[in-house]
Amino acid sequence: MNAQKRCVVLLSGGVDSSTSAAIAGADGYEVYALTILYGQRHKQELESARTVSKALGIKEHKIIELDLSLFGGSALTSDMPVPKGRDTAEMASGIPSTYVPARNTIFLSLALAWAEVLGTGDIFIGANAVDYSGYPDCRPEYLEAFERMATLATKAGVEGQVRVKVHAPLLRLTKGQIIRKGLELGLDYGITHSCYDPLPDGRPCGACDSCILRAKGFEEAGRTDPVLA
Amino acid sequence: MNAQKRCVVLLSGGVDSSTSAAIAGADGYEVYALTILYGQRHKQELESARTVSKALGIKEHKIIELDLSLFGGSALTSDMPVPKGRDTAEMASGIPSTYVPARNTIFLSLALAWAEVLGTGDIFIGANAVDYSGYPDCRPEYLEAFERMATLATKAGVEGQVRVKVHAPLLRLTKGQIIRKGLELGLDYGITHSCYDPLPDGRPCGACDSCILRAKGFEEAGRTDPVLA
Repeated sequence: MNAQKRCVVLLSGGVDSSTSAAIAGADGYEVYALTILYGQRHKQELESARTVSKALGIKEHKIIELDLSLFGGSALTSDMPVPKGRDTAEMASGIPSTYVPARNTIFLSLALAWAEVLGTGDIFIGANAVDYSGYPDCRPEYLEAFERMATLATKAGVEGQVRVKVHAPLLRLTKGQIIRKGLELGLDYGITHSCYDPLPDGRPCGACDSCILRAKGFEEAGRTDPVLA
Repeated sequence: MNAQKRCVVLLSGGVDSSTSAAIAGADGYEVYALTILYGQRHKQELESARTVSKALGIKEHKIIELDLSLFGGSALTSDMPVPKGRDTAEMASGIPSTYVPARNTIFLSLALAWAEVLGTGDIFIGANAVDYSGYPDCRPEYLEAFERMATLATKAGVEGQVRVKVHAPLLRLTKGQIIRKGLELGLDYGITHSCYDPLPDGRPCGACDSCILRAKGFEEAGRTDPVLA
């Protein structure tokens, strides 16, 4: 009997990464989830990531701290205001201040380290090229360049035993399609967290880009967001 | 008058990265040094990195903590024994247990994040392809693949304002050539630290790969190592 194939899933505890983890499990992988605490404002994500890991029966969940606020350059890791009340056309028009420089590259590199130790090249990321079409590190050509670099970076890659594959199953889905997919797989979105700038009691602000995209997704999917119910 | 061009230098406080920082300064860059505390055994590196930064007149020195021991897989971040007493032929014969999975990729990704905030694409790394010819992430084709990925990863890269360039000025130098180069530039190797597994009083063990390569380098350069003097 072959051992079950393994993968590392980047899991923030939001809608996209939780759906990506559910898809990895449904695809037959033994899932190892990695959560990175990078100094972001929305630390409720961590609790959501833990709850999602348990709900999905994930094999192992690691949490790594890395304070990217040291570099600044993002509203998610500094005192810059988080944009509020923007419509989706505004969001699509450019890279917002919530962009974190090189974040996907750093996250994928950390996933690569763990994948190498686990003896796999399969990495899942909830990247999406639809809602923020201007994000450089969510484009297919970026992800392919990362795979190529990563295969050259590791011992197993060089020896031809492992080819790094970055799975981005949500890349071309709308938020509504993502939520429908997760619901089909039995994911309870009531345990996920999306807001960039939660209220003092932890409830979502309802006005940041992430809350607005989430609301749009549930509307498109024709469902009520369980977090708001 | 043009502003001085900036670069980010990965600085551990060892011979190679300190020499690479001295070269970046001599090349006319305003140097921003990044030290990563990744859970390695040889924490004396941090003090050396601080002292080297001051000695070289570096513009800004940032230290970021990232505990890669969470993933294991390396003698530098776990309880695995550090190999001792190996000759250089043995070192060149394969990837040693002191290899840290995906380390250069993670370090370069963090340097990329800071470089993006600083508005530059120039990154210096003390990678060397001579002493450990088996290291996948010290090969020129890896570094080129990283550059290509990184240029696609960032806003400034995509907009054509910045092309990421990974400078590895030591890539093809022997340890003796590296030390001669640093001495020419006035670098005091007495403030650098190389040992993977220092004695309880902080002195180098003299037997790990790093100590042996350092000794070989000073011998080739015809100089006495000031750390041992």
